[in-house]
Amino acid sequence: MGKKAIKNVAIGERCKIHRTVDFGDNISIGDDVTIEQGVLLKDNVTIESSSYVGPRTIIGAPTRDFFKKPEDYQNQKTIIRKSSIIRANCIIYCGNEFGPNLETGDNVLIRENNMVGKNVRIGTLCDIQGRVSIGDFCRFHSNVHIGQKSIIGNRVWIFPYVVLTNDTHAPCGKCLKGPVIEDFVIIGTKAVVLPNLTISEGAVIGALSLVTKNVPAGMLMIGVPGKVVFPAKEIKCKTGLLKEGNPYPWQELPHLIEQEGIGRS
Amino acid sequence: MGKKAIKNVAIGERCKIHRTVDFGDNISIGDDVTIEQGVLLKDNVTIESSSYVGPRTIIGAPTRDFFKKPEDYQNQKTIIRKSSIIRANCIIYCGNEFGPNLETGDNVLIRENNMVGKNVRIGTLCDIQGRVSIGDFCRFHSNVHIGQKSIIGNRVWIFPYVVLTNDTHAPCGKCLKGPVIEDFVIIGTKAVVLPNLTISEGAVIGALSLVTKNVPAGMLMIGVPGKVVFPAKEIKCKTGLLKEGNPYPWQELPHLIEQEGIGRS
Amino acid sequence: MGKKAIKNVAIGERCKIHRTVDFGDNISIGDDVTIEQGVLLKDNVTIESSSYVGPRTIIGAPTRDFFKKPEDYQNQKTIIRKSSIIRANCIIYCGNEFGPNLETGDNVLIRENNMVGKNVRIGTLCDIQGRVSIGDFCRFHSNVHIGQKSIIGNRVWIFPYVVLTNDTHAPCGKCLKGPVIEDFVIIGTKAVVLPNLTISEGAVIGALSLVTKNVPAGMLMIGVPGKVVFPAKEIKCKTGLLKEGNPYPWQELPHLIEQEGIGRS
Repeated sequence: MGKKAIKNVAIGERCKIHRTVDFGDNISIGDDVTIEQGVLLKDNVTIESSSYVGPRTIIGAPTRDFFKKPEDYQNQKTIIRKSSIIRANCIIYCGNEFGPNLETGDNVLIRENNMVGKNVRIGTLCDIQGRVSIGDFCRFHSNVHIGQKSIIGNRVWIFPYVVLTNDTHAPCGKCLKGPVIEDFVIIGTKAVVLPNLTISEGAVIGALSLVTKNVPAGMLMIGVPGKVVFPAKEIKCKTGLLKEGNPYPWQELPHLIEQEGIGRS
Repeated sequence: MGKKAIKNVAIGERCKIHRTVDFGDNISIGDDVTIEQGVLLKDNVTIESSSYVGPRTIIGAPTRDFFKKPEDYQNQKTIIRKSSIIRANCIIYCGNEFGPNLETGDNVLIRENNMVGKNVRIGTLCDIQGRVSIGDFCRFHSNVHIGQKSIIGNRVWIFPYVVLTNDTHAPCGKCLKGPVIEDFVIIGTKAVVLPNLTISEGAVIGALSLVTKNVPAGMLMIGVPGKVVFPAKEIKCKTGLLKEGNPYPWQELPHLIEQEGIGRS
Repeated sequence: MGKKAIKNVAIGERCKIHRTVDFGDNISIGDDVTIEQGVLLKDNVTIESSSYVGPRTIIGAPTRDFFKKPEDYQNQKTIIRKSSIIRANCIIYCGNEFGPNLETGDNVLIRENNMVGKNVRIGTLCDIQGRVSIGDFCRFHSNVHIGQKSIIGNRVWIFPYVVLTNDTHAPCGKCLKGPVIEDFVIIGTKAVVLPNLTISEGAVIGALSLVTKNVPAGMLMIGVPGKVVFPAKEIKCKTGLLKEGNPYPWQELPHLIEQEGIGRS
């Protein structure tokens, strides 16, 4: 009998755990946690206090090794820190550690072995491929794809359908190396970032651009292939709706500094 | 005890409701409705007659306010009109109202507070971001992303992986304004439409184009950045499979007029 | 009473079938099969030995005809061959036949009536639209969209967010014809392939390219619109990490030939 009859599950006070939640072994849940219908918690999952897990989300999904030798397989630890919100139908593989105040949209997929900072938001249908480093206060909008081995700094915003790639000569795979995205960078909708490049602090990438070379700090890149055109701080608000100042550097906008942790503060 | 013991659920005649369906409070279901395994109906959901809801779909999902003050939270009404088909694993937030004959693919996500007309199809993996207006007889293919505050007319066709954006100087957010897409517009696969623009009646946008300025009625735009090249009605069928006439204006094609409601009729 | 009281379900030896699995009629399951929580097997599904089906996956989902005349509807056969791994939340429509050793990511959608060869991998969030032919040893990364009537050879690699289209004058539909992708072709991230074209053996398409014309065998195409620039075999490894030889033809790389079935072997 490979299966233990008694599982090690610790649940804090004032939790709301739906009766259909399925527990693996060695689960630790803090106080004031809500877990909705049909959530699967696989082995070795910790969920800290005041967190919410939406319907049908899977936390601690096994890696590929599980299929090769299920009898020897040991699931890595997965840690959800306090005050996190994970919406419905997400799949978070094992071996992930997130800082507090994580917030995800629905249908998010996060593969194994990422290190993610505090106060990060990961939007609907994002696909984080694993072995990625993500700093604090990052915001990923819907359907962002982060290739393995990407390195992302603090307060980086990535807009819908951006892809960070990692294999220069695919499918060779000998050169697997993701891009480095420094603090305060903005990557516009549908941009593609090629592997092994650096987008330096505060640079801005326009929508549907193809980033084929390094982008210097604070510069705007647009086009296919991308060209560095001028400093982002020279961009004016064309709509007239931003009453004072310029839209970049965005982290100096008063209304964003006011949002806790979003601006440079 | 914040939870009412008795829920207000009204179900019509000849319905097939799977035993695993989870009901919130104040649910109204018409006659001849089928609801499949594991569907979650949150508070204040109406589903009119002859509709179908596929497995694991969630209708009336709560907005972000739910997480801020759950004890005061009131779910907005969600209305699915008659003869609608909603496939599996969809998530429809509260505060949406759809016209009759809605049809969705699987895994569709619809955020809160959209107004959607009649006979609309929303394909697999579409992501409608909320506060969007959509007219009648629109067709969205797979994986279309409609940013908040977009305004879409009648009989608009949008093809896979199109994104309508809404923040000119993201992440500033002061200028949030989606594009206006007028009646009969065709937007080709993977096009990106920048915020605060108008694509006028019957215009056609080529695949993988970046729409950076207004598109006049009936014109074809292609490229990155998009250029207006010539009237769409001058496009000839290169395949020889369309025996008579030209492919645009598409709403005058006899075989599309025959499909109820699709052409101008 | 249209519903048979007794269903025809055959299950092999040493299977692990979760108690929440929902069986349709006429189901055949081989030996050593694992089926996880909440899987739905609709009518006429075969799953051969040593296969794994992840949580909440649906196999044999009904076609659109089901909604038109449910009382006359007959679900087509769906065949999963031996040693396949199908991860969580996938939806595989009826009328599909796969070769052995299929492996899918999570959240994969496969519409009806595809013929798929052996040892194929279909990544997370892929959307195979139906009536597609796919050869052996193909690899699709995340979020690949294959339009109806595409024809894909053997050992083809397609990278994230690629779309194969099929309607030259959408929404006309009279000319519906997918592209032909020959053996050993590589299609880079976010490329779009227009309908009714051929990408010949061993050609390589760069990231974010728009393929608007045929691509000759072994050539590299890049850009929007795509231009054929030079033979792929002239591409050098710029990273220095591939110690010997060139990255293309990829099927001659020793480390890929070693992976069973991946290279030309």
